Amino acid sequence: MKPTLYSYWRSSCSYRVRIALNFKEVEYEYRPVHLVNDGGEHKKSEFTELNPKQEVPFFIHGSHSLSQSMAILQYIDDQWPQPELFPKDAKLKSQCLQLCEIINSGIQPIQNLKVMSVIGKRYNADEKEKASWSRYWIVEGFKALEKELEKTSGHFSIKDTVTVADLFLVPQCYNAKRFKIDLENEYPKIFKVYKNCFELEEFRRALPEVQPDAPDKNPV
Amino acid sequence: MKPTLYSYWRSSCSYRVRIALNFKEVEYEYRPVHLVNDGGEHKKSEFTELNPKQEVPFFIHGSHSLSQSMAILQYIDDQWPQPELFPKDAKLKSQCLQLCEIINSGIQPIQNLKVMSVIGKRYNADEKEKASWSRYWIVEGFKALEKELEKTSGHFSIKDTVTVADLFLVPQCYNAKRFKIDLENEYPKIFKVYKNCFELEEFRRALPEVQPDAPDKNPV
Repeated sequence: MKPTLYSYWRSSCSYRVRIALNFKEVEYEYRPVHLVNDGGEHKKSEFTELNPKQEVPFFIHGSHSLSQSMAILQYIDDQWPQPELFPKDAKLKSQCLQLCEIINSGIQPIQNLKVMSVIGKRYNADEKEKASWSRYWIVEGFKALEKELEKTSGHFSIKDTVTVADLFLVPQCYNAKRFKIDLENEYPKIFKVYKNCFELEEFRRALPEVQPDAPDKNPV
Repeated sequence: MKPTLYSYWRSSCSYRVRIALNFKEVEYEYRPVHLVNDGGEHKKSEFTELNPKQEVPFFIHGSHSLSQSMAILQYIDDQWPQPELFPKDAKLKSQCLQLCEIINSGIQPIQNLKVMSVIGKRYNADEKEKASWSRYWIVEGFKALEKELEKTSGHFSIKDTVTVADLFLVPQCYNAKRFKIDLENEYPKIFKVYKNCFELEEFRRALPEVQPDAPDKNPV
């Protein structure tokens, strides 16, 4: 049963799931959903019927379908247990989830495309102001993330083994770079883990720019 | 080893943790952190040193300390396994986490006090506009939550057993009611689960208004 991932090349939450599927060596069907073109394909009835939250990632495996990257990652880890992406030790697992959620609930939801669009409409925010808004929330979150990584990180976010925390960190760094945040000098621990992850081809193959729907591959 | 919970009576994320501790029958020390008075106690150096993210809930158990309600709930469930709050079945667990994250990353972070305060400063949003902003995001999320509950709910969010999904749903409904959202008529499934939860004293004892720092008990 080959699963299907509805993804958008630049969606950081889809990026998390792509990395997980690479680690688990799961073959999957990639279905692009363009969040910008034509008012957003995620708002069309075809996709809305599948996922009323109108968001990617959206994951289908047999008769089971899921939105929310954290739920999808947990399901993937349960279905394809090797390599483990959640620490077994309760303390490490909770630290790992804390790092994930600093990003998953503390940064990404406030700086994403949807919120920027509403700020544009409600407050006439232009592109510069929207970018400033996003930068503000990434910086707020990264200050805390950097401090936590001082306690937990080794080669990766949790010591020297890849965990889901890295699957959240790398895509959030991608967003940070889009908004011109200087990771290397401002957040050395975050930058170190980010750099180390790209030693692994599982992270490289999940990069936005190499996805089937990236604009270099599908020029509009 | 009695754990300590840094909480604010009206914080919906602290409310989630209070319900869990009640179900697990864990005695804990309640330490109030006032998020409004005096510019916010969470921003003072004393609390910031403990939790650089300057957020409640913050949980300390022996030498282990955690922020982020989802991480805290998972840790509590690991340390005090009975009654189980996460379904064991992988599909049910993933549906449960999906419901949690629709609220945890999809609603609460965008409509909380911190974001409302930044909107006030950046866009001169007054109290009425801030409430309208919060209502917008709750409604967006509740539309999706209602549809998911049509698939998953019984007496509670996941069939007929209390899970962490209910621990996210009830506090988010508390926020929705503050912003005058008509749960009963607009979101009948959400309302039904919400109402059913209050049959249980574990939910009632976690209510904001019965916490030590609620204003009725500590008039300012």
